[in-house]
Amino acid sequence: MERTLAASLAAHIGREVRLAGWLHRSRELANVTFLVLRDASGLVQIVTTDPAHRGIPEETVIEVTGLATANAKAPGGVELTEPRLRLLSDPAGTLPFDLFRPILKAGLPVQLDHAPLALRHPSRRRAFELAAASVAGFRGVLDARRFVEVSTPKIVASATESGANVFGIDYFGRPAFLAQSPQFYKQMLVGVFERVYEVGPVFRAEPHDTTRHLSQYTSLDAEWGFIEDHRDVMRVLRDVIAGMMATAAERVGGELPVVPEEIPSIHFADALDMISKSTGEDVRAEPDLAPAHERFLGDWARTEHNSEFVYVTGYPMVKRPFYTHPDRQRPEFSNSFDLIFRGVELVTGGQRLHNEADYRAALRALGADPAPYESYLQAFHFGMPPHGGFAIGLERWTARLTEAANIRQTTLFPRDLHRLNP
Amino acid sequence: MERTLAASLAAHIGREVRLAGWLHRSRELANVTFLVLRDASGLVQIVTTDPAHRGIPEETVIEVTGLATANAKAPGGVELTEPRLRLLSDPAGTLPFDLFRPILKAGLPVQLDHAPLALRHPSRRRAFELAAASVAGFRGVLDARRFVEVSTPKIVASATESGANVFGIDYFGRPAFLAQSPQFYKQMLVGVFERVYEVGPVFRAEPHDTTRHLSQYTSLDAEWGFIEDHRDVMRVLRDVIAGMMATAAERVGGELPVVPEEIPSIHFADALDMISKSTGEDVRAEPDLAPAHERFLGDWARTEHNSEFVYVTGYPMVKRPFYTHPDRQRPEFSNSFDLIFRGVELVTGGQRLHNEADYRAALRALGADPAPYESYLQAFHFGMPPHGGFAIGLERWTARLTEAANIRQTTLFPRDLHRLNP
Repeated sequence: MERTLAASLAAHIGREVRLAGWLHRSRELANVTFLVLRDASGLVQIVTTDPAHRGIPEETVIEVTGLATANAKAPGGVELTEPRLRLLSDPAGTLPFDLFRPILKAGLPVQLDHAPLALRHPSRRRAFELAAASVAGFRGVLDARRFVEVSTPKIVASATESGANVFGIDYFGRPAFLAQSPQFYKQMLVGVFERVYEVGPVFRAEPHDTTRHLSQYTSLDAEWGFIEDHRDVMRVLRDVIAGMMATAAERVGGELPVVPEEIPSIHFADALDMISKSTGEDVRAEPDLAPAHERFLGDWARTEHNSEFVYVTGYPMVKRPFYTHPDRQRPEFSNSFDLIFRGVELVTGGQRLHNEADYRAALRALGADPAPYESYLQAFHFGMPPHGGFAIGLERWTARLTEAANIRQTTLFPRDLHRLNP
Repeated sequence: MERTLAASLAAHIGREVRLAGWLHRSRELANVTFLVLRDASGLVQIVTTDPAHRGIPEETVIEVTGLATANAKAPGGVELTEPRLRLLSDPAGTLPFDLFRPILKAGLPVQLDHAPLALRHPSRRRAFELAAASVAGFRGVLDARRFVEVSTPKIVASATESGANVFGIDYFGRPAFLAQSPQFYKQMLVGVFERVYEVGPVFRAEPHDTTRHLSQYTSLDAEWGFIEDHRDVMRVLRDVIAGMMATAAERVGGELPVVPEEIPSIHFADALDMISKSTGEDVRAEPDLAPAHERFLGDWARTEHNSEFVYVTGYPMVKRPFYTHPDRQRPEFSNSFDLIFRGVELVTGGQRLHNEADYRAALRALGADPAPYESYLQAFHFGMPPHGGFAIGLERWTARLTEAANIRQTTLFPRDLHRLNP
């Protein structure tokens, strides 16, 4: 007999079905036992008087054959009666916390220590289903625009991109590093495919213990050529975000924010001006936005533009990486942007330099030795179009979508300063 | 004016168009110059008599506006005439090898040293477009069967899976390792989502310099629960492979092998028997297949079953990892398989153990300390269904599809014993 999923049981009322899943709950009354079976689709109540069905530990994997029976009092209006039951696993051990309660009461550290178990709680799954759907939406939008998906090296010869916070590796006796982003590679590949994207892990040896940083996270990277400037990048990113949201809504559902046709945008200098005027504290000389400023702008966008999203453009060149393209009119500002989602920076992007001479000048200005950059500079030596791109942090995206307090709630097996297990 | 792609120029004959791309070729005759522009879609010939259009180095990025003109002698029956030309990049440097010739003549090491340039050659791109399309096909088949895409840690606390060939990392002063596969994580996640897949990098400190091994490759991993045995896994894998091929055919095209409705299958013991009889060399006591045996079986499948694919099932338990499920009838053999594609092992898969007691017994039999496995064993302590899965090496897949002699030809920026750059 084909397996029936919990969520589709109501379509089988009056018929014999076979279910399989985890024993989510066992409630033994004097004359009757209520079992709840959990599978990937949901929960089903099973009513039994068979004494052999008592005493099975919760989380044991079972197969149940029985009659799908309408019962207005049962969750979903249907339950399984006259069950025959077979164990598919050995009886489960004693649980360190209850999974059957609607709210998972264990604290986050306990949940993380018992991730293989805690993640089974229905309340934990939704974030990851949203993540998977969002990534599918990201790919869908870019595939339709003839982007090519690529895989780039995660082991690199030098800690070139930002210099700090890299993990060192022993590479056959030579030093090497874990890549902090696919930035250099995706740019080089614009020279090959014009338009590329990558979904993959990036690594930051983040020495601070915060609720929004991880040592490994999933970066949704895109980069493409033949743009005018960063505003082209922002337009595509808007469509990508809208596609992620649409696929999340379609596959997972629930309350999800609306992505406006045009995301409101404010120049960095105007943002600091506004914050200074509004708070009375003069922050106009700041080179970057503090988290409190991002929250301010998030509130402003929600109030003034009815948008959960806001672009901040033109960050000062001093705070952006050397490959950033300056604003030709005001060269102390950049053709770059951040996208703030619900008051937190979610995406960084912009236009990049595309001429070798500009790269060499930028490295010179930093006093950086160009030697470790030579294989990257090759691409620009041989002709590269004006180009740009962006990177979205996936776990941060789902944390904002689900309004999780800690990014570890939207990471299956987080890695941080203290945690390497499971 | 909207940009027109090279491949769609014929649809614009008689009209003014704007093209952009790389100067693929410049051929200067006495009275006329033929330029060839290359973009992501193909090549276009440009005819010009303007002296300013001479002397532009190949690979410089240009924008050309002009008239799409029918010309039976031009490639594709169309060319651009009366061009106005604008450089979008500085003039390119002198190329170390010609890109305009139909065949890229540089040797593989030279190509790899100049990857950002060599990959631009049209002959190099197809493999990566096939790879991207194949991954899309992989996801498409599994998404339709309600698999959930996941991201798992690439930094792990112990070198537990195979013990050898791992890269060590300095993780905030503690030793850690790069994950050799997502095996443990995808199994734990079967307990959460029932069905999962991951496309991501895996790392092997492969100390041998071969044409088919890399230090980093892309693994297409799937794992799911509620199977009967490895034959269920083989049936799904067949559909996945067929989906990969179909999407590759649809998006890239060209001559691609047919995936039979049922992939022929031979038991390991029968395979050795057949090889022994056919070659006269008695290999029946061998615990594994040598590359020559895989080639033999590839030829056999092609000749006898008209199939480029063949399953070898029931590999001896001694050669399979400790989580492998034995064949209940013949416990020295396993419920596992390899899929051989064109004479090379492409996929390994099978049924896994699902009861904690069996894991502990398997580790005991190996004399292994269970301590580093405890967080993995947790999943089995709390009830896991019978499950299995497989892993496909993406670069190896495209190498076999394109019949590339060396896996480095189907890897954008390969990492091996000697190579960390670009």
